[in-house]
Amino acid sequence: VNDPRDIVALKRDGLAIPEAELREFVLAYAKREVRDEVAAAFLMAAYIRGLDASETLAMTKAMVDSGRTVALGGISRPKVDKHSTGGVADSVTLVFAPLAASLGLAVAKLSGRGLGHTGGTLDKLEAIPGLRTDLTSEEVEAQVERVGCAVAAQSPDLVPADGAMYALRDATATVSSVPLIAASVMSKKLAMETDLILLDVKAGSGAFMKTPEQARTLAAACMELARGWGRRARAAVTDMSQPLGEAVGNALDVAEAVELLGGGRRGRLRELTVLFAAEAMASLEGIDRAEGSKRAERAIDDGSALEAFARMVEAQGGDPSVTGDPWKVLPKAPVVLPIEAGESGFVTAMEAEEIGRASVDLGAGRLRKGDPVDPAAGIVFEPKIGDEIETGQKLGEVHGRDEDAARAAAWRVIAAVTLSDRPVDPPPLVHGWLGTDEER
Amino acid sequence: VNDPRDIVALKRDGLAIPEAELREFVLAYAKREVRDEVAAAFLMAAYIRGLDASETLAMTKAMVDSGRTVALGGISRPKVDKHSTGGVADSVTLVFAPLAASLGLAVAKLSGRGLGHTGGTLDKLEAIPGLRTDLTSEEVEAQVERVGCAVAAQSPDLVPADGAMYALRDATATVSSVPLIAASVMSKKLAMETDLILLDVKAGSGAFMKTPEQARTLAAACMELARGWGRRARAAVTDMSQPLGEAVGNALDVAEAVELLGGGRRGRLRELTVLFAAEAMASLEGIDRAEGSKRAERAIDDGSALEAFARMVEAQGGDPSVTGDPWKVLPKAPVVLPIEAGESGFVTAMEAEEIGRASVDLGAGRLRKGDPVDPAAGIVFEPKIGDEIETGQKLGEVHGRDEDAARAAAWRVIAAVTLSDRPVDPPPLVHGWLGTDEER
Repeated sequence: VNDPRDIVALKRDGLAIPEAELREFVLAYAKREVRDEVAAAFLMAAYIRGLDASETLAMTKAMVDSGRTVALGGISRPKVDKHSTGGVADSVTLVFAPLAASLGLAVAKLSGRGLGHTGGTLDKLEAIPGLRTDLTSEEVEAQVERVGCAVAAQSPDLVPADGAMYALRDATATVSSVPLIAASVMSKKLAMETDLILLDVKAGSGAFMKTPEQARTLAAACMELARGWGRRARAAVTDMSQPLGEAVGNALDVAEAVELLGGGRRGRLRELTVLFAAEAMASLEGIDRAEGSKRAERAIDDGSALEAFARMVEAQGGDPSVTGDPWKVLPKAPVVLPIEAGESGFVTAMEAEEIGRASVDLGAGRLRKGDPVDPAAGIVFEPKIGDEIETGQKLGEVHGRDEDAARAAAWRVIAAVTLSDRPVDPPPLVHGWLGTDEER
Repeated sequence: VNDPRDIVALKRDGLAIPEAELREFVLAYAKREVRDEVAAAFLMAAYIRGLDASETLAMTKAMVDSGRTVALGGISRPKVDKHSTGGVADSVTLVFAPLAASLGLAVAKLSGRGLGHTGGTLDKLEAIPGLRTDLTSEEVEAQVERVGCAVAAQSPDLVPADGAMYALRDATATVSSVPLIAASVMSKKLAMETDLILLDVKAGSGAFMKTPEQARTLAAACMELARGWGRRARAAVTDMSQPLGEAVGNALDVAEAVELLGGGRRGRLRELTVLFAAEAMASLEGIDRAEGSKRAERAIDDGSALEAFARMVEAQGGDPSVTGDPWKVLPKAPVVLPIEAGESGFVTAMEAEEIGRASVDLGAGRLRKGDPVDPAAGIVFEPKIGDEIETGQKLGEVHGRDEDAARAAAWRVIAAVTLSDRPVDPPPLVHGWLGTDEER
């Protein structure tokens, strides 16, 4: 075995690490044979000096090989995995899984929990009483084959190197590195043998990547990894300069998803989910995107998407009547306060991350891994950039445990919104697409 | 208390860390309140991005304040501390301490042990049977007041942050950074309240700094720290492109020192020691350097330097008759092999570090902290760059435990020497001096 310090020294000096040596380093770290402080020095050197495409691929391969992989061989439909890099009011996955299932595709989604200002799909689903996400991989596979979709917690033996390394990056200020993020995101996607990986790379004030350019760089690094692996993937760089939907919480998001899946809600969340469904149909079945969008719209409007959601909820032990009247089933917050506009004007910008953090502080999210979340807490905020609002207009609601916390959250939401006398255009929903097919 | 990651992130992004925050980080690390992996990330960021003069000073101050300081108030003579950054056949400290004592100065030298290819003064002195280096600071002070010099092991409560941080740097490939080395070297000097700090910064194949320019940069960083502290210091950048003296071991070095201190040996080791003694007299007593050199030469030639050495050895429990016939007292190796020239020519270069490592592998040094050393083992090598040697000429001796090891060491020494048909000039002994007085 090589001295791991030699690997660290190469990166420290801005040199490339040979593939085999980087692989050995990562696998040794996963087995705890390389100490945290040595890996921390490596991560900082990699953060500052960067990792080239072949280093990033070698690192990602080693991360996948640190654990088991999931073959999903028992699923007969075309398999699509969809992942978001994280945003505010970003329930695309919650809506996409049943929508795609209703269109004949298979979605086996292994998900992490929410951390920081972004919500987690598991936390949202678990707001439905009785619903389990601790499925075995056999249960996931059987459920997907039967109902078309499943959303379950990622098991700890899938890419264990990523869990250890992410915690170390969090502790050592080395999170926000494109190659390290790409390796972390893609290792979990590549460990599942699906036919298509769809990535939603968020850009803007509510995302990790603050500009579309940064998000595009990350998306390109992820596509490069998929290409190096011989896997089909598509990535959209999408707007996160404002919350995508209206609900920022858990039960609130489920209620929003139910309404949307039943055809009762328009807007950017529906639009983006339909785009992803059309992209999946185009990639997997060669269906023209316009035709795919039409079919997705139809699946929403004729109730088949909502029915797929009900089947998934029931299969995972939840009460499927949540798709009838959600608030008969979902937990409600004791305090609901309206958010009212203090001034009038055109919405020109939002600090979406601040709105996410306000919701976390209400109890809807967690600051530390393992913290419990309050399923009932959260924020509903309706305005979008470009909207004109009037003084006193109701803009949404805060759902909280007590008045003081709810009032503080309402203030934070109002303060996170910038108004102007002049109208502005809404930002584009999708900044662009990248893929393994056409790009090099 | 701040989140230590914020400090790490500043340096990661190439920004300066405010003095108070860097101080808090270092003190918290010394108390183990900042974890090793976080400090490792900081060290790597500092290695790559650098630390400016005020950051280096703040870090050094915090390192000193992590432990106790030594006032040496009971010593009435002018107090000088002398430190070498480490080289091969570098016994200047061993010779300088009694020489300076014989000239009326006080030398209280707290020293570390040898590590890697460079020897340690403690290990050398301990080759003298009975000699103790584990003196308390009270014992050191009393001995220096009485006999003028003492060489003792650094106690663990002196600059504890440095011990922890040096081990971490060694583990994380972050040793060779000028500001980190300067902080480490100078924190230990500044923790002792002496009147003058003399630094011997080695440059060349047997030193950490391979070029005089690199060594000068390190020397300047150290002088900047002394200046920031308000302490008088002088640094020489000296030649380490070849072993300084002839002995590379422990007992062998003591025998060489005894011969030199008694006036029986000329050469670069004597020249450099005399220069440091003259520098100390110039700085502390305003004595002209030429006159100081004359006095130092006289102290060697009239036996007073050797007498000071005998008094120091006796005060520390060793047998002072080592100054009469060293080899009646010092341990001898079972095998002594001559080193013979295989070719003729002019010596043009030496891999001095390789000669040091050959001696370490004979048992004279240690690869890991805490390893024992063989006091009898080592190498004597006489030629210097510029010398002409003949095929078959005896160039020195290997002292070892067995024939095979000794033969291998002899080969390594021969292979470390480059010969040429054309004569070359010897390298300068001193590349230059820097000081807190004249420079800014």
